[in-house]
Formats: sequence, structure tokens, C-alpha cells
Amino acid sequence: MQFELTKKYLGSIKESIKTADEIKLNSLVSELHPADIAEILDEVSMREAKFLYQLLDEEKAADVLVELEEDVREEFLANLSSKEIAEQFIENLDSDDAADVIAELPDKKQEEVIAYLEDEEQASDIVELLTYDESTAGSLMTKELIKVNQNWIVERCVLEMRKQAEEVDYVFTIYVVDSNDKLLGIVSLKRMLITPVKTTIADFYKSDVIFVNTNTDLEEVSNIMQKYDLVVLPVVNEEGQLIGRITIDDVMDVVKEEADKDYQMASGHSEVVEATDTVWVLSRARLPWLLIGLVGGIFGAQIIGIYEDQIKIHPEMAFFIPLIAAMGGNVGVQSSSIIVQGLANKTLGLDTMLQRLGKEFSVALVNGLVCSLIILGYNFAFGDSWNLSITVSAALFTVIIFAGLFGTFTPLVLDKYKIDPALATGPFITTVNDVLGLLMYFMIGRMMYM
Amino acid sequence: MQFELTKKYLGSIKESIKTADEIKLNSLVSELHPADIAEILDEVSMREAKFLYQLLDEEKAADVLVELEEDVREEFLANLSSKEIAEQFIENLDSDDAADVIAELPDKKQEEVIAYLEDEEQASDIVELLTYDESTAGSLMTKELIKVNQNWIVERCVLEMRKQAEEVDYVFTIYVVDSNDKLLGIVSLKRMLITPVKTTIADFYKSDVIFVNTNTDLEEVSNIMQKYDLVVLPVVNEEGQLIGRITIDDVMDVVKEEADKDYQMASGHSEVVEATDTVWVLSRARLPWLLIGLVGGIFGAQIIGIYEDQIKIHPEMAFFIPLIAAMGGNVGVQSSSIIVQGLANKTLGLDTMLQRLGKEFSVALVNGLVCSLIILGYNFAFGDSWNLSITVSAALFTVIIFAGLFGTFTPLVLDKYKIDPALATGPFITTVNDVLGLLMYFMIGRMMYM
Repeated sequence: MQFELTKKYLGSIKESIKTADEIKLNSLVSELHPADIAEILDEVSMREAKFLYQLLDEEKAADVLVELEEDVREEFLANLSSKEIAEQFIENLDSDDAADVIAELPDKKQEEVIAYLEDEEQASDIVELLTYDESTAGSLMTKELIKVNQNWIVERCVLEMRKQAEEVDYVFTIYVVDSNDKLLGIVSLKRMLITPVKTTIADFYKSDVIFVNTNTDLEEVSNIMQKYDLVVLPVVNEEGQLIGRITIDDVMDVVKEEADKDYQMASGHSEVVEATDTVWVLSRARLPWLLIGLVGGIFGAQIIGIYEDQIKIHPEMAFFIPLIAAMGGNVGVQSSSIIVQGLANKTLGLDTMLQRLGKEFSVALVNGLVCSLIILGYNFAFGDSWNLSITVSAALFTVIIFAGLFGTFTPLVLDKYKIDPALATGPFITTVNDVLGLLMYFMIGRMMYM
Repeated sequence: MQFELTKKYLGSIKESIKTADEIKLNSLVSELHPADIAEILDEVSMREAKFLYQLLDEEKAADVLVELEEDVREEFLANLSSKEIAEQFIENLDSDDAADVIAELPDKKQEEVIAYLEDEEQASDIVELLTYDESTAGSLMTKELIKVNQNWIVERCVLEMRKQAEEVDYVFTIYVVDSNDKLLGIVSLKRMLITPVKTTIADFYKSDVIFVNTNTDLEEVSNIMQKYDLVVLPVVNEEGQLIGRITIDDVMDVVKEEADKDYQMASGHSEVVEATDTVWVLSRARLPWLLIGLVGGIFGAQIIGIYEDQIKIHPEMAFFIPLIAAMGGNVGVQSSSIIVQGLANKTLGLDTMLQRLGKEFSVALVNGLVCSLIILGYNFAFGDSWNLSITVSAALFTVIIFAGLFGTFTPLVLDKYKIDPALATGPFITTVNDVLGLLMYFMIGRMMYM
């Protein structure tokens, strides 16, 4: 039932394009979902993609366009006139998808495309959607929805809904507004279905409806929808008027994107990449962390360099350099990641910063004791000197405590100053803890015996 | 509009519980959404939570129960008899939530609760849901749905739907089945609304419906729903009979959970934790990575130990130990994370393993060259010896290439053998690359001049 793009399937498509066998191509793709066709177009060359694309009927072509990867879509649209874009694509799309596609065009082309739209309401909806900031509810909402006046009776609502429903794919919920379009509440389709036809809406609508403003942050939107298990969320303007709705499939895309971004940032990528990106893009995304690491390594070299003469006499101090550096980095990543995730998911609870640092201190104490006792045992067992054993254990303990506190403190402070706390994961925390860990290690060694 | 739990609000609630002021408590929580009440109960002590909870009416109490954190819910239910659990809670829940709550009970209590259920259909639905593996579509689906026979006319459908709708919260889509309950297609509520009442369903239903089987993997379910922008997905059994549906809010929970788990695994946690967990839970989750790191550090010490005599003469070799170790770890994490994410999101494309390794080799080549040239320049500028400079640069270059390939290879192999590739991120890759990087560094140093 489900389509899976195999090498073989892709091979026959490429073969049919080569021989310009339109009948075979049609039989290969005509039954496919737009998302599947987009997947094929993303995989073939631009020339092949264009040949295949012009075989699609207009409505399907528009749906496929929305599903394409951004760079492929851009190339497609670059070759079309503003008039073609407006008439062949935009007019077949919902307002939110239409605005997304238009937003990717150059400024001048944006205006032209909008001017070519025949449906004035659609044009003004798109213009409105384009004004909202990318990170707000306004940018994610669609204008298509079904609303009824509180003074109407069920019978009239059903008639009005039939009209409105033509341009709404999924109904989900019917919104109740007053004569000034102010959002009052909701009625489920189901409820409308089972209520006597002469009843006035005002008598049975549900008034405790959860909504957001156009400028509500998207992270907030996704937290609300997840917390209250909503599939659709109404959006109001400053005056409380209903002006759009956000559906959960769009929010899910945002959540997934955010999660992928955080994951990649934590694993040392400075921009969001995919395994299929070019070597150049992949290298560029990784280089910043490597350079930070390089600088950290150079600082590390400088610190160890201070103790050059001591290392000549006590080369055994060098043995545990990787251990100390690695453990500092590890603990820092662990503690910062929990804070970063807690901030994003709003699961930090109501503790103050001091309480959180206190808790982190306890955790670091437990793990620091366990790890330093193990390494003490190891060093004794392998006959290392008393001085070295104590130095390594004491330094490890200190580093674990410090890295834990620093990893907790940094993202909290960044967040306080409205800087993305995710910056505190990965390269920054690791490198600082590496370097400071080494400094502590050698300082303790110096105090002990070096 | 939106509720936010503040310290002050929590304070008045705690105060009212202390003074047993039920009227004030009722005024504080009666208007709140079950998810908000659950949030309060998660924050107060168990004794306080119980006092507050018994003030809720039965239906709300059931909804709150579902929203509680697992450990709090467990404590709540532990004090209730099987009869109370069945009659006060389970009977007020949808089949999927009911099955989730029951699944958390001890085996014996599970049977008792089910035996106490008065609605036999609900009981058999729950028994069925409990049989599905946690990671499959069957475990996430709910039995409540609306279905119509292909031979019915719209008029009859509307009547039947009114009956069925009573136990379905959101309708979304109407499923079309044959007389043997085999899934044939779907009709949207909107379509049903605008079609003449005497039309037979068979004449206008949409037959190309996307569905999954009860044993379809949850990751697959979420990929399908995201790819095709679905809000609800029908589930069929081996015979193709419609037996349930999965809604996107439940899938979103799974996606979020998976993303959080992967993020935490990549940042060195062996179990999923939250900042609000106890010190003991947090310490336990972090210790495994630290112990792996400790073992890696000990191996590192052994390797450096081999070169003890050389370090006495050439202490400058020790300076760059942290650099080499850190860079190996960083590159390994970068390359493995992209593969792990690509495997999870199915965005790896159709490349073979050899092609992927080839690409990774190119990326590592670019970054390896950049980094080793920089460090070469640094060493020259600071007057380090020719031998040391070449050693550090050559080792860094080798380590970056090796770590990149190893980080790509490992998750791909794990995935091939059906082991969670996420294991290859974090501790394992970092530690192996740390240790092997050191070995390469000293071997090259030995060859060069030590």
C-alpha cells in the first residue's frame, strides 16, 4: 500500500524520461501521492525533474510544488514567469502554503505574483500572512476556516458551512464569533450534527476555548498544542477577532525541525544539514565546531606548556591528560543538555537558579565521588605513586563538580539574556571545560608534588 | 487566557489545602483544563495532591489522571481498589488512554480492573489493545472511530454517525467499509455534508486511502503521517479489516519523546530524565557515560605510558594530547549524528554504504586539511620544532579522516544488524576516537623523531 522509492523504481523513471516515454511515465507516477512525486523529483536531475513535472495536471503540480525541497522548488520557479506562478500554482494552494511559496521568491517577483492573483480575497490573505514574523503563530496559520455567528440557528449554520467548506480541506472545529468577528467559542462538528436544527448557537457553544495571538511564539504554540492535545488552534488579532487557525500537522513539522536543529547543534553542526547535502555544505557546517575545538586545543597546549619542565621529571602527569579533559567535557555536555531541553519543553518546574545549581552540585558530588574513587583504586592497583594517585583523583573530582555547575549555569544565563541556550551545548561547553579542567589538574599536581 | 502556573498561584493552592478551604480550592481549580490541574498535582506533595484530587468531579478526575506524570499516577492508583479504578476512571476514558493506564498496573490488578468494567465492548477493546507491542501502531491506536458501510446512503450514514459520534471526541474522517468490515476508503465529514442525502456511499468515497497495520513500527507511522500531512491514520488487521485509528496528537507525543531520547543519548544519558527528577535518578542516568569515559581515559593513560621515556626527552609531545583527543571525538560525533538522524528520518537517500563513506571521506579531507594547515601555521609561528609541527599536523589530519569514517561506518553497521544506531553517538564513538587518536599521534611522533 505505502509507496517506497526503490533504486529500481527510480531507474525505470529515469529510463522513461530518457526515451521520453510519456505513457509509461504517466503509468508510473499518476497514482502517486504528491509527497511521493516530490520525493522522486528531489532524487533526479533538474532536467529530468522538469520533464516529469510538466506531465502532471495543474492541481497535482501545485501540491507537488509545496512538498519539494526548498532548493529544488526555487529552481523550478526561477524559470517561470510571475503570471505562470500565480495562475498555475498559487491559485491552487491554501493561503498558508501559498504564502510560504511566495515568501521564497525575490521581493520584486513576490509583488508581481500577488498582482496576478485573480481572487482578491486570496491575494489579501497572502499579503497579510507575509507580514508576520517567521517565528510567530501568524506565519504558521492558514486563513481558511469555518465560522458561524452566535445568533444563528443550527439550520442556518449548516447551510453557511456548506458554502465555507468548499475551500477548507479539513473542518475539525467550527468557530463561533459575534457580529464583530470576535472569537467567542467553538462547536464541534459532531455537536452540530447531534443538536436539533432550530437551536441557536449561543445556547450550546463551548466558551472556554484555547487560542493564541498572531505574535505568539511558535515554541509556545507547540507547547500549548502538545499540553492540551489539540489538533487545531484558533489565532486572534489584538482586538480578539478570529483571523486564522493553526493545524497540528504544520506544528509537527516545526517541532521536528526544532528537534533536529537542537540535536545537530548539540552534535557540533553550525547549520542544519542532511546526509544528502553536498560535501561543501557538510564541511562548512562542521568547521566552526572544529575550529573552536582547535582553539581549545591550542589553549590546552599553552597550559601544559607552562609545566614543560615538570613534565620532564614527572612524565606520568601526561598520562592522565586525556582522562581529565574528556571527563570535564562529558559532564558539561550532560548537565547543559538537560537544562537546554528543560527550557525548551518548559519542564524545569519552579526552582530558582540557586536551587538548580544546588541539585546539580549533588548530582556532580555523587558522580564525582564514584569516578574519583574508581580512578584512585586503579592507580593504587597499578602501583602509581601516592602523589600521582591523589592528584588525578582530586583533579577529576574538582573537574566534575566544576563542569556540572558551569554546564548548568551557562544555559540558564544565556536564556535569561534571551540568547538561544542551545549554544551552550556542544562546542562551547566542551571546550571551556576541557581547558579549565587541564588547568585545575596541573595546579593540583603542582600543589601536590610537581 | 492561557494558564501559567506561578509560584504565587501554587502558594495559594498549598495554603488552601493546609486550611482545608475547599471553597477557595474549588474556585482556584474548577475552571482549569485537566492538563493544568495535572501540572499542579505534579508540583505539590502527594498528600496535598490527594486532598485536591478528591474534590474533582469524576469525569475531570479521569482526564486529569491521564495527564499526570507516570510516577504520580502510579501512587494515586496504588491506593485504590480495582473496583474503584474501573468505575471511577477507566469507564470515563477512551480505549487507548484506558489501555495505557491499565498497562502500568501490576498484572493481577490489570485483570481485576478489566473484570470490573461494565461495558463489555470497552473491556474487550482494552484487552485487545494490551496485546500489541509497545513500539507498534496497535499500541497507539484508539478503537473509537466512525465507519459506514459502502452500501448505505448519506441519509442513513448521518443517522448512524449520530449514534457512533457519542463516543468519539473528534471525528476527522469517516471510514468506509464493506459488510465484512474491510477498509475500502474514506469520506470527509465535509464531503458528507455537501452530498445529496440519497447518494450511496459507494458512488463517491475516496478509495486511495493510506493505512497501516497493527504491527507497523511507530517510527514508520510517524514518518508516514508527517510525509503525507495526515491528522488521522486508519489501522487494519492482517485481513484488512478496520480495527482502529491513530490520531496525530498521540504521534506527536511519540515523536517528541523519540527526539528527546535521541538528544539525551547523544549528550550522554543512558535513560530519559528530566531536570525535575531526583538527584539519584539524574546521577544514575549519567554515570554509564562517565564510566565509559573513565575506561577510555585509562586506556589513553596506558597508551601514553608506553611512551614515558620519550616524553621525558620530548615533553612538548604532551602539549597536544588534548587537541588530538578532542578533535577525534568531535569529528566522530559530527559524522555519526548525521547518519543517526538520517536513518531515523529516512533522509539518507539511496546511496550505498560505500558512496556514503566516500562522501564522508571528502568532507573529512576538506576539514582535515583546513585544521591541520592551521595548526601547522600555529606551530611554525610559535617556533615549535619542525618535527613536532609535522607530527601534530599529520596526526590531526589522520585522526580527522579516521574519526569521520568510523563515525559514519559504525551507525550504519549497527542499523544493519537491527541495533539502535543512536548507541553510536555520544560515549562510544567519542571514547573510541579519543583512544585511537592518541595511539596514532604517538605512533606518528615515534616515526618522526621521538
